Amino acid sequence: MKAFYGEDVLLRGETARALYAQVRSLPILDYHCHLSPQEIWEDRHFANLTQLWLAGDHYKWRAMRQNGVPESQITGAASDWEKFQAYAATLPWAVGNPLYAWSHMELAALFAIHTPLNPESAQSVWEQANAQLAGGGFSARELLRRFSVETVCTTDDPADSLEYHEKLRADTDMPTQVLPTFRPDRLFDLRPASLGAYLPRLENAARREIRTLEDLLEVLRARMDFFAARGCRAADHGMTALPALPGTFDEAKRAFEAARDGRQPTPESSERYADFLLRFFAGEYRQRGWGMQLHLAPLRNVNSTLFARLGPDIGTDTIGDPVPAARLARVLDAVEREGGLPRTVLYSLHPSDVMMLAAMTGSFSGEMPGKIQLGAAWWFNDHYDGIRTQLRGCAAAGLLGRFIGMLTDSRSFTSYVRFDYFRRIVCSEIAQWVDAGEYDSAGAPALLRAICYDNAKAFFRLAEKGENQG
Amino acid sequence: MKAFYGEDVLLRGETARALYAQVRSLPILDYHCHLSPQEIWEDRHFANLTQLWLAGDHYKWRAMRQNGVPESQITGAASDWEKFQAYAATLPWAVGNPLYAWSHMELAALFAIHTPLNPESAQSVWEQANAQLAGGGFSARELLRRFSVETVCTTDDPADSLEYHEKLRADTDMPTQVLPTFRPDRLFDLRPASLGAYLPRLENAARREIRTLEDLLEVLRARMDFFAARGCRAADHGMTALPALPGTFDEAKRAFEAARDGRQPTPESSERYADFLLRFFAGEYRQRGWGMQLHLAPLRNVNSTLFARLGPDIGTDTIGDPVPAARLARVLDAVEREGGLPRTVLYSLHPSDVMMLAAMTGSFSGEMPGKIQLGAAWWFNDHYDGIRTQLRGCAAAGLLGRFIGMLTDSRSFTSYVRFDYFRRIVCSEIAQWVDAGEYDSAGAPALLRAICYDNAKAFFRLAEKGENQG
Amino acid sequence: MKAFYGEDVLLRGETARALYAQVRSLPILDYHCHLSPQEIWEDRHFANLTQLWLAGDHYKWRAMRQNGVPESQITGAASDWEKFQAYAATLPWAVGNPLYAWSHMELAALFAIHTPLNPESAQSVWEQANAQLAGGGFSARELLRRFSVETVCTTDDPADSLEYHEKLRADTDMPTQVLPTFRPDRLFDLRPASLGAYLPRLENAARREIRTLEDLLEVLRARMDFFAARGCRAADHGMTALPALPGTFDEAKRAFEAARDGRQPTPESSERYADFLLRFFAGEYRQRGWGMQLHLAPLRNVNSTLFARLGPDIGTDTIGDPVPAARLARVLDAVEREGGLPRTVLYSLHPSDVMMLAAMTGSFSGEMPGKIQLGAAWWFNDHYDGIRTQLRGCAAAGLLGRFIGMLTDSRSFTSYVRFDYFRRIVCSEIAQWVDAGEYDSAGAPALLRAICYDNAKAFFRLAEKGENQG
Repeated sequence: MKAFYGEDVLLRGETARALYAQVRSLPILDYHCHLSPQEIWEDRHFANLTQLWLAGDHYKWRAMRQNGVPESQITGAASDWEKFQAYAATLPWAVGNPLYAWSHMELAALFAIHTPLNPESAQSVWEQANAQLAGGGFSARELLRRFSVETVCTTDDPADSLEYHEKLRADTDMPTQVLPTFRPDRLFDLRPASLGAYLPRLENAARREIRTLEDLLEVLRARMDFFAARGCRAADHGMTALPALPGTFDEAKRAFEAARDGRQPTPESSERYADFLLRFFAGEYRQRGWGMQLHLAPLRNVNSTLFARLGPDIGTDTIGDPVPAARLARVLDAVEREGGLPRTVLYSLHPSDVMMLAAMTGSFSGEMPGKIQLGAAWWFNDHYDGIRTQLRGCAAAGLLGRFIGMLTDSRSFTSYVRFDYFRRIVCSEIAQWVDAGEYDSAGAPALLRAICYDNAKAFFRLAEKGENQG
Repeated sequence: MKAFYGEDVLLRGETARALYAQVRSLPILDYHCHLSPQEIWEDRHFANLTQLWLAGDHYKWRAMRQNGVPESQITGAASDWEKFQAYAATLPWAVGNPLYAWSHMELAALFAIHTPLNPESAQSVWEQANAQLAGGGFSARELLRRFSVETVCTTDDPADSLEYHEKLRADTDMPTQVLPTFRPDRLFDLRPASLGAYLPRLENAARREIRTLEDLLEVLRARMDFFAARGCRAADHGMTALPALPGTFDEAKRAFEAARDGRQPTPESSERYADFLLRFFAGEYRQRGWGMQLHLAPLRNVNSTLFARLGPDIGTDTIGDPVPAARLARVLDAVEREGGLPRTVLYSLHPSDVMMLAAMTGSFSGEMPGKIQLGAAWWFNDHYDGIRTQLRGCAAAGLLGRFIGMLTDSRSFTSYVRFDYFRRIVCSEIAQWVDAGEYDSAGAPALLRAICYDNAKAFFRLAEKGENQG
Repeated sequence: MKAFYGEDVLLRGETARALYAQVRSLPILDYHCHLSPQEIWEDRHFANLTQLWLAGDHYKWRAMRQNGVPESQITGAASDWEKFQAYAATLPWAVGNPLYAWSHMELAALFAIHTPLNPESAQSVWEQANAQLAGGGFSARELLRRFSVETVCTTDDPADSLEYHEKLRADTDMPTQVLPTFRPDRLFDLRPASLGAYLPRLENAARREIRTLEDLLEVLRARMDFFAARGCRAADHGMTALPALPGTFDEAKRAFEAARDGRQPTPESSERYADFLLRFFAGEYRQRGWGMQLHLAPLRNVNSTLFARLGPDIGTDTIGDPVPAARLARVLDAVEREGGLPRTVLYSLHPSDVMMLAAMTGSFSGEMPGKIQLGAAWWFNDHYDGIRTQLRGCAAAGLLGRFIGMLTDSRSFTSYVRFDYFRRIVCSEIAQWVDAGEYDSAGAPALLRAICYDNAKAFFRLAEKGENQG
């Protein structure tokens, strides 16, 4: 029996251990996450373990609800200690859940605590961790440094001022490079109320009026230039469904301008607008050398009762229907024909899409190694089996050696243990092929270094902070 | 090489064996099956192995057809010995099929026969088993006692008189508690011929006429009270597809009353009725504290040639399309908003639904531990890989420690070896996490006891027979 | 650590090795492939490793594109040595891809080369292999002999003259039996331009005019007789989607004759025609005792840019949406009702269809062992995990012992190592059940021989060359 979350956890055998030794200390490139640049700039400190762990983590909130914890002890008025107790009482039931692994890996890595967290150990863990938190070394910036985070790509709205990115960029004491990511999801929502609330923000950021589709596209190009000048290397789109119908400029113009004037476009018209807009963005990203990430198939805020009470991002999103393959192929083909696909990363929240997406990447590849990527195991798939399925699908229908590897997709500064979690798993997988005589043992270290570091750096054209950047 | 279905079968390593020792003798709570309360009451005896095994088991019939056995030796006029021979000739080809495991586990557990069943061994197995059957100890009640079955929840139509449940309830010699389950599938079928045949049965049970939707709902409430008074703790719905459209009372009323008058409602109208009725039931179940089971995605009787000859439940049902996630979310959300979901168990026959359903349970949870459950691996998924996939999906996106565990879903009194099959698998899974240092070894026994016994008892509010019940 | 693609590769343990020893030398029945009968007749020789490996293999082309290799070095004007170098530079990134396994198994089996192929070893491998190629023993016929290929079923259009099949049949020096397969995909395409281009070829082959649907069916019956007389035992259909709607003779007649006259039928009308035609074929196959193969769910030529440049079959096909279960059940049921299904093999390119298809085979079985088959892991699924998933799905919902085993589906004479690849995997899977005490060790050798040889021979009614054939 191995030690509880000890040195060798998740490493399957000698070869895995030897390979892991070669990648464990590589710097981290977190090319997609939801960290707050303001919190990094202000170097947020955390008063206790609940502040560090539970204040904004809807993964943990879901698990607590599944354990019957009352909302007051999750998002409500209970004390931090009560909330921590409720989480400690939930965790023992979470065997096999990545929360169980991450929580204990975080306790080990950050606080040298190696005890299972449960109702019996809760008070001791609480006291030990809080004492260490009070002693310093756990602020936002200190955590980034401890985890050797070289680059963080945050997720930002086109209307964002990027003021904290500018400050961080100018701060020579800050070793971690913090770059913005362009995420224009709001523009795909043509409900007049939503668009009416959003456009003024965009107009304000751009300092000009948006009346026509031509205006909109011009403003968006300017905002992309603004992002690029601040180091942006990636865009991101979250979409429950890809556009069902192809759309022309004229169709998109009619739909957008109707919504601009307060009229709800038909569903068909909205689909055509979305198709046009997505293809427009893809072409712009290509010209700027950005990586385009498509996050597909979530269902958002399905529990309208909790949504009414707590709003979005509180743990009621879920897995939607699989991505329609023919629709995805149509969109990718259109972009390829109209000037070429940008570097592209395809994520689906539905686990049965893995092989479909892996095969699709191969039908549109070319120009550079790994130009079209199967995205890392995302969200509900970000656990041992999900990561393994993604790695093996990527291998079976593509080139695993060109995979750009892990990201956190997280709002938490302690989530960087997930890179360690991933590196241990990918080393175990490669080791298993080596041990079985199915892969060249001499080539394995370089392959792993590529997956764990080099590929993401090349794909997103990342330099280290202070280096000359295009 | 391990002994053929010996002591250690399905147990992977020392830790698995140690954990299994702690749960193997726990009583059985079979919270969903298709046993006949009449056969229990009458204490059915079995003349030979064919009567015990092959008389009603369409799993075995399918396998025999796949082996080219003529129908006469499956459901036809051949002798019991010929049918047994045909099954014995089929089984060697069924490597990896749960029938292979179950059959040999049943031979071992019930008859101490440890030989592989095949054409060579058929006669000897037949004679040994039949001799033991003749010696007694294999009647319906004796089998329930041998397997330590504490509670059986049968599957019953709202129009059922529950007379055998009443008799069994009053029988103090009978240690197993036999409870009815409310399964109103017939009411979702608005084809006038089907409804016209069914409603008189329901009117007869309720001793009143049903002309309007109001009448129907009143009668159903009365039938639920009738079931509740006889110990019912669960409802069950078998649905090829969830309702595609939301339905109001008025829409449902129009559809039902048209069908009542012999007119076929439109497909849209039938969908709206089904949605309304499902939400009505869910609300009633909640008020009664019942567990609502939704069995989704089967295709029934797809082979119309065999259906015309042999009727339903003879082995031509199959796996349908995956459950549409957005539709499921809509239905659950509506019920949650209109008064709250009851305790709910979601089963799908399509294996690629596991993670979608596991994630969905987390979006609607709350109030009590494990209120919304991913159902146990069902039917075509009730084998080693399917059980493992369900357990790991449940773990990855929820709280495996709150899972209510196994059921038989069977028509056979020997199917209780499936609890042993399940317990061995779940112990091996948990042991593997413990051995790998990924779960607390001290917590594992309580966790397993919860999955194998405690959770189902709490979820369905089961007491032991004779205890005071609400 | 095992030797790199050594004697024991893919064999998991002692029992696997012992079982493999009993099946490794069985002759090969390749009941579905795309080899050219002309190349076999003319006994094509290969000048170098690029000619042998890269000239027509779109699996390898895809991988090279994914590695950023310019098209000139894939399908373009670069020298054979440059193309080989580009492949050698791609392969190290292809860990876990079946190309990695197949390439090294081919180097070992054909050339006794046991070095990993990579940029460093490329020149030495190129020289060693080319020297051996020049020495003889690697022509089309010699390769078939070396791999003990007893029967090859090619894939042929109904309009094909089968002249090379006739010549090969008459050639008593040729030990391998080469049989045609009837693949009438072109007739399902009612676009007037496509039909207009194709019908004259068919009329020419049949030496009569086709004006009406009656004419077409008569011609097709005659072509099937022509194929049957040349040893055909199988038909094959490649379909992105099954027909969505049932079709009568009259509906099919209207659609076909409209297209024949240059008018595009409506989508609905085309679906009804396709349904009618598929059922017509199925009935004819049944009468002739042929095996009907349905290859479902690919998306063809999704990258229109590459298609315009290079045409079909160059590596831009991909995985489409899962097969709709209800639609498949409807088609199978209709054929069963109208005279009975032929021997049928169901393949889907979408891996999440495995259990659905495996269950479906059981709902329509009967008459002979394994009449309705889950097809072998196809195309993007033809790797370790895909084969394992297919075997275990076949086992879980059917009779793995009745499975007809492997085929190459390949255009290359070196692909026969895939039989060795498959046999090692299936031996490891069966061995694992034997080792775990879950299957009869005494029965395993016969079971494996059936899967690796006997079942396909019986299913396709194959004799050895020169034996009397029906």
